[in-house]
Amino acid sequence: MRFTSEQRLDDGVLERGFALGDIPGILWTPAAAPAPLILLGHPGGLRGMYPRLAARARHAAAEGFAAATLELPGAGDRPRSADAEQARADLRRALEAGGRVDDGIVDRLVLPLVEQAVPEWRAALDALLPLPGIGGPVGYAGGVMGIGIRLAVVEPRIAAALLFAGSFVPRALVEEARRITVPLLVLLQWDDEGNDRQQALDLFDAFGSTEKTLHANTGGHTGVPHFEGDDGNRFFARHLR
Amino acid sequence: MRFTSEQRLDDGVLERGFALGDIPGILWTPAAAPAPLILLGHPGGLRGMYPRLAARARHAAAEGFAAATLELPGAGDRPRSADAEQARADLRRALEAGGRVDDGIVDRLVLPLVEQAVPEWRAALDALLPLPGIGGPVGYAGGVMGIGIRLAVVEPRIAAALLFAGSFVPRALVEEARRITVPLLVLLQWDDEGNDRQQALDLFDAFGSTEKTLHANTGGHTGVPHFEGDDGNRFFARHLR
Repeated sequence: MRFTSEQRLDDGVLERGFALGDIPGILWTPAAAPAPLILLGHPGGLRGMYPRLAARARHAAAEGFAAATLELPGAGDRPRSADAEQARADLRRALEAGGRVDDGIVDRLVLPLVEQAVPEWRAALDALLPLPGIGGPVGYAGGVMGIGIRLAVVEPRIAAALLFAGSFVPRALVEEARRITVPLLVLLQWDDEGNDRQQALDLFDAFGSTEKTLHANTGGHTGVPHFEGDDGNRFFARHLR
Repeated sequence: MRFTSEQRLDDGVLERGFALGDIPGILWTPAAAPAPLILLGHPGGLRGMYPRLAARARHAAAEGFAAATLELPGAGDRPRSADAEQARADLRRALEAGGRVDDGIVDRLVLPLVEQAVPEWRAALDALLPLPGIGGPVGYAGGVMGIGIRLAVVEPRIAAALLFAGSFVPRALVEEARRITVPLLVLLQWDDEGNDRQQALDLFDAFGSTEKTLHANTGGHTGVPHFEGDDGNRFFARHLR
């Protein structure tokens, strides 16, 4: 891993771009060290997602957490996969046609992404955790439930996860969710039109963790209330310190 | 209203018993004044509920809130109603027999209680709010969803409500719930055996408030995690200050 850029933000947070092999990523570290690390999940496309990711990272840094994220396979400047592009086009067509999206499309879209991304995020942990200023257990906060589920199952360094509920979770990953044991906080936007509410509740029910909390709020996909950011920080403070 | 007892607790909170006509109640006030008032709901029987109510009141007082509660009709030393006793016996029999509880039993048990209790709680507000040390908008926090629903609908001084999900909410009150507009925080124990989860989710969906939040946690009826007390305080701090 090598750093490709570095800037000190006005709140004292150090933001560094990095490359893990060919994969770009960003690391935010607060002034106070050592800071537990939170991995920030996203739907892909670091450039477009930057404002929201930076805001989440700075909010976490204000509570003493470091944060890091990685570009997803097939997103940003990373090479496209023909199969994934085809699955994405099929999903778009199915959504436009209305009705239920075929499980096969979801599997073709999500499972290869999870297969490729999760080892990359674990390699990022290998590279990030030895850095000065970072220490302690790791959290995951993100909306790509597939990656979050698999990471929480296979990566013992993940001690707690905050998951934004979303649709299009392959059945195989719902089954994997039963094996998760770390504390979970699941955010659900109650009126999210692009999200099957019952599916999200069923997934919450499936998680194997003995400590799991669901926060459901009125509003659409991007309408998560500001106070949930504070709740997220307190959730991680309980489990990463 | 007259005070019947007074003691200063070790955390500086002043606890006063009172009588509103023949109805006993308790008022807790923190040292810092004026304090917004939170009404504490409960299933009836102040004597048995005292340890839990006092703990909730002292937790609220630590964040600068006053708290008050009132005995319910037919509970504690208050006169029993033959109809309510009959409905309670019918409910117990229905629960022992298993299966779905008839709506008629729920209506006979809850609706008269709500009809009688809500004016009493409003009269308590009339008596409590002019007291020195109490000021600002009022919150309701309680598990008797019927009383909480009706109060939030008819009492304009209630500015926010924290409701513990429970079963046996009459259909008429679910309809009333659609007219609630104040911010709500609803607590649901996900594995509460005495509670129909789907019914609780349907009720959450019915509330008319544009700001409503559901916190669902693993565990049974009495297993509400300690951190929900802090979340409740922050919810009221957002809306009562």
